Amino acid sequence: MFVIMDSRASDEDIVRVENRIRELGYQAHTIHGDTRRAIGVTGNRGTEDRIYLEGLPGVQQVIPVTKPYKLASREIKPENSVVTVGNVRFGDGGVVMIAGPCAVESRDQTLRIADLVASKGAHMLRGGAYKPRTSPYTFQGLGEPGLEILAEAREQTGLPVVTEVMNPGLAPLVAQYADMLQIGTRNMQNFELLKESGKLGKPVLMKRGMSATLDETLMSAEYLMSHGTHEVVVCERGVRTFASHARNTLDVSVIPAFKQVSHLPIIVDPSHASGKWTSVIPMALAGVGAGADGLLVDVHDDPSHALVDGPQALLPENFQELMDLTAKVSAALGRPFNLHSTATG
Amino acid sequence: MFVIMDSRASDEDIVRVENRIRELGYQAHTIHGDTRRAIGVTGNRGTEDRIYLEGLPGVQQVIPVTKPYKLASREIKPENSVVTVGNVRFGDGGVVMIAGPCAVESRDQTLRIADLVASKGAHMLRGGAYKPRTSPYTFQGLGEPGLEILAEAREQTGLPVVTEVMNPGLAPLVAQYADMLQIGTRNMQNFELLKESGKLGKPVLMKRGMSATLDETLMSAEYLMSHGTHEVVVCERGVRTFASHARNTLDVSVIPAFKQVSHLPIIVDPSHASGKWTSVIPMALAGVGAGADGLLVDVHDDPSHALVDGPQALLPENFQELMDLTAKVSAALGRPFNLHSTATG
Amino acid sequence: MFVIMDSRASDEDIVRVENRIRELGYQAHTIHGDTRRAIGVTGNRGTEDRIYLEGLPGVQQVIPVTKPYKLASREIKPENSVVTVGNVRFGDGGVVMIAGPCAVESRDQTLRIADLVASKGAHMLRGGAYKPRTSPYTFQGLGEPGLEILAEAREQTGLPVVTEVMNPGLAPLVAQYADMLQIGTRNMQNFELLKESGKLGKPVLMKRGMSATLDETLMSAEYLMSHGTHEVVVCERGVRTFASHARNTLDVSVIPAFKQVSHLPIIVDPSHASGKWTSVIPMALAGVGAGADGLLVDVHDDPSHALVDGPQALLPENFQELMDLTAKVSAALGRPFNLHSTATG
Amino acid sequence: MFVIMDSRASDEDIVRVENRIRELGYQAHTIHGDTRRAIGVTGNRGTEDRIYLEGLPGVQQVIPVTKPYKLASREIKPENSVVTVGNVRFGDGGVVMIAGPCAVESRDQTLRIADLVASKGAHMLRGGAYKPRTSPYTFQGLGEPGLEILAEAREQTGLPVVTEVMNPGLAPLVAQYADMLQIGTRNMQNFELLKESGKLGKPVLMKRGMSATLDETLMSAEYLMSHGTHEVVVCERGVRTFASHARNTLDVSVIPAFKQVSHLPIIVDPSHASGKWTSVIPMALAGVGAGADGLLVDVHDDPSHALVDGPQALLPENFQELMDLTAKVSAALGRPFNLHSTATG
Repeated sequence: MFVIMDSRASDEDIVRVENRIRELGYQAHTIHGDTRRAIGVTGNRGTEDRIYLEGLPGVQQVIPVTKPYKLASREIKPENSVVTVGNVRFGDGGVVMIAGPCAVESRDQTLRIADLVASKGAHMLRGGAYKPRTSPYTFQGLGEPGLEILAEAREQTGLPVVTEVMNPGLAPLVAQYADMLQIGTRNMQNFELLKESGKLGKPVLMKRGMSATLDETLMSAEYLMSHGTHEVVVCERGVRTFASHARNTLDVSVIPAFKQVSHLPIIVDPSHASGKWTSVIPMALAGVGAGADGLLVDVHDDPSHALVDGPQALLPENFQELMDLTAKVSAALGRPFNLHSTATG
Repeated sequence: MFVIMDSRASDEDIVRVENRIRELGYQAHTIHGDTRRAIGVTGNRGTEDRIYLEGLPGVQQVIPVTKPYKLASREIKPENSVVTVGNVRFGDGGVVMIAGPCAVESRDQTLRIADLVASKGAHMLRGGAYKPRTSPYTFQGLGEPGLEILAEAREQTGLPVVTEVMNPGLAPLVAQYADMLQIGTRNMQNFELLKESGKLGKPVLMKRGMSATLDETLMSAEYLMSHGTHEVVVCERGVRTFASHARNTLDVSVIPAFKQVSHLPIIVDPSHASGKWTSVIPMALAGVGAGADGLLVDVHDDPSHALVDGPQALLPENFQELMDLTAKVSAALGRPFNLHSTATG
Repeated sequence: MFVIMDSRASDEDIVRVENRIRELGYQAHTIHGDTRRAIGVTGNRGTEDRIYLEGLPGVQQVIPVTKPYKLASREIKPENSVVTVGNVRFGDGGVVMIAGPCAVESRDQTLRIADLVASKGAHMLRGGAYKPRTSPYTFQGLGEPGLEILAEAREQTGLPVVTEVMNPGLAPLVAQYADMLQIGTRNMQNFELLKESGKLGKPVLMKRGMSATLDETLMSAEYLMSHGTHEVVVCERGVRTFASHARNTLDVSVIPAFKQVSHLPIIVDPSHASGKWTSVIPMALAGVGAGADGLLVDVHDDPSHALVDGPQALLPENFQELMDLTAKVSAALGRPFNLHSTATG
Repeated sequence: MFVIMDSRASDEDIVRVENRIRELGYQAHTIHGDTRRAIGVTGNRGTEDRIYLEGLPGVQQVIPVTKPYKLASREIKPENSVVTVGNVRFGDGGVVMIAGPCAVESRDQTLRIADLVASKGAHMLRGGAYKPRTSPYTFQGLGEPGLEILAEAREQTGLPVVTEVMNPGLAPLVAQYADMLQIGTRNMQNFELLKESGKLGKPVLMKRGMSATLDETLMSAEYLMSHGTHEVVVCERGVRTFASHARNTLDVSVIPAFKQVSHLPIIVDPSHASGKWTSVIPMALAGVGAGADGLLVDVHDDPSHALVDGPQALLPENFQELMDLTAKVSAALGRPFNLHSTATG
């Protein structure tokens, strides 16, 4: 942590800051520049204490150096973490494909699409039984019956299931059915939900908030990890910017930046980022090119009657194309992309 | 709702869209332009059905016209709503001042600051017993004992109390102590929390999400209103942009835009927007100039030892200056700003 | 400047950085923390040299401390600068009102509106003879004949004139007619234009770029100042964000931040920020509340036939209301707002 | 174009709008919905006339349908354009690699790096003789001597040269030396520069502005095309967002969206987007995955002494890796990536 003093700060201001640093139990190292002084702080743990220094007279700025996350940090654990869900492994160099309907609409629809994505080689099944919807007047998900359908789809296909949890009180219920809990983008800083989900010790797929910084994203992963689960996979799903040509701006630049500071796996959701199925395959391949550990895509066989997000769903033939191209690009990059064992394609 | 067809759309594409519109129970009005055709849709309620049309062949874009919110809309209720909390009235043309510590740190600190802001004429007391913190390692609030302290502060000062609720399961508990529930910026799209908070029927202060559009903000108000409370006040507290000179970019332009489409009151939180106390007074006056119905500010008498957000808190003398300037600017604009009855200043 | 080393940096990496710092002629001060080392650099001028250090092995980050601008900095000149254009003074504590049509459309229209704004007490006249238009197919301005009309309007009203310059080659021509040159938002980093405009030594009104940081804004002011003019007024006119309820997001938070680091005056353009006349008065008053040194507004007496930006122009009666409210709010804040001497009330 | 009326608009308001539409020479088609009326406008050319309708009483919103660009639009020219620079072809399905130093620093440095990138198979040489720099105190480029060096590098390597033009008055000079003119991101809406550059009829590489929408980007291309050149290649180089983990947020989602509405080629600059060489290869491959027609990268053999943007430059061995991986991924996607004929690698 560095405390940058104003160029007009007095000697008294300097001494006050130095004393406050020592009062907090740390060491102060004052550097005298031509136009101003700065004070290096060592011995501090984390960056929480900056708030005690920022308001002192003569202080221009406090610059944290140590990252506030620990468990998620590559400094603590230099090698990549591999998160295992059933026989699926995130972060071992390969590319994981998670596919399925955006929402569980009915037993028939879900089993049909689960069969479809399994037959084409997807590794995991996605589908929401609880849906976060901007409007209170739209379909909110089937709830527990939807979870039962997902469990049946797993039985039938052998694919592990990831599904969203929205209410801290229902986290244990969702965990009974799901192989992996999903935290949605709007809930990335729903700290109560993170705490309750983390306590269950199950693998969690946490979507980056739509305006979350990299540090905030890792702090939310830290909430999960410090409460009990170490099996966290982060998902980039587009951020909010001024650009209106896509529903969100898929931020592929976060992938190498994330991997530099964290050992956790990170995947990409090109469907929610795009909002339009015509952009899903290019965005998926961009994610693989950027180094993502996997993809999460919406597939539907009747998008014009889907209850949620129909326009972004891939049709079966598009999904086949995505599988083929992902396989080819992964191979070009020397990354495994093994089709699910039941794949018939 | 308008369906804009691609310039290369065929007659067959047009017919398919017209049929789908009728299948949904609405009317289709096709307009033939020079380069393309467009289809006006009437009879629809809300905009949910756009997803059934967006994916059809030949469709370039679906443009909703009717807003998806109803209860929050000025079209339904043309006159301003007045939200009453004790003897405080939001939305009647006057300016309401809510002040207090960011967090309830201790009984002594809270009672002391409550007395202070009451003596200077503030109308309501703020203070968090549950704190949403980016880091799991920082002070998370006192919880229920904090609520008890707030209730005691109300007794002592006569000021109604607003405090944050974070967990849907604890909403009834918070409602027992608070006069008004606060939904934080990170929870504006925590729909489970909105549902449970709305059901209690108490006034709610809902902060705009840090990257929420105006429509999304009103849809979240709609969640609260459609679940039981009609006493909703929205709070602009800065949005996330590329700019780094302030913690957030206070979006004063949302105030006139909000008032044009909604009858609800809207206030401004200059403290969280700025992150630095030196900018709080200018941002507060900017909010009043833009037409905000009130202000929500952090006050602390020992910011360099505050457990949360110390650098943004106003000192007692700054708060006095804010009260004086708010009174003068309100008067200049012909807006009431009556000091709380116990004010001694 | 601080060089933050990676926690895994070797002693050899440290020595290499220290040597490079000395090679550049500066001093290195190495601080040993628990998890990493950092090196304070003193003796450097500006921040240009960071690029020589950022790429070295083991370097995690280089943090500049000294601001890259000098002439625009309050560190060099602690007291406010007053920029004088005719008898108009920016930055002396008062509020300056610049008003007029967005574009010079005709002699008649310009003289008519100039008379109007002068009669209501505006201090300066605005109007564009060269218009930066997103589309090559729309009205691009009258060019030099437009400048002649502006000069005639000045004769007639006594109001000094500010008008935009777009082409470095035409800067001397524009300067012959104008009392103050305007640099548009799209040209804030058109460095050739800044150089040529600065050389003329005339006062310049420089609009902040629509995605410019505070530092970039001040660096562009520095271009003007280092090339010859010290009479620079900056104008906040809204920035580009995700928000779509206004054409741009007026960033009032930049005003106190700007004044903290620079001695230059800063004004607000509520018309271009809003894009809609209904929001212009609230945004203008927000600007005054935030501490702006003046306002720049579009006025038109027939907006539905205006060639440029009609929807954002104030009608004469709205402009009267703005003058009245600005006078009242300025008075409440103890800031002078004297009507132009020819004002007829 | 659609005119959406306020739900409270009177019959008189409707008639006024209909009349104004007819006065402009267009047809009005009024649609009566349950809560409001809307008026379809046909016969209009472009969207310029919306400003005459937006300010009328009772009008809530005017929604343009026809895009304001024509020459750049795929509606006018459905098939892809191929832009040819020497023997390099942009837009024919292949991937073009443009590489070289950010700035021409000296004859020796430029010839050395030109040889290097040619020997590894790059197709074109980049290098700036005029540099847009945020600070007036940093290296501004060698000017015309730099152009001469670039011409010599072309002689020596056979690679066509692209270099930036900043001043409209110097566009003819730059065009004498360069095979392709570059418009920088800060100048994308420097309309005078676009006009002068377009008139020369040479191929132009136009970088997207750092906060430009897709429509604005195409309107700037339209400036170039309507003034004389039809050989325009657009370059995505990252946009400005709240995210701070990269210098800019590379917006790969613009690539499929761009190709849907325009026939022009689009390439990606991963170097300026990232700002750090460690992210350049992942961002380059993301661009190829997303469908970009080429890449523009900075290469330097001594980045820690580079005068401009050293930290983002690829070292020779990194560039070799980029060439290898681009070749493999291009092949996986069935896209040609032929090495330059002089490649020795």
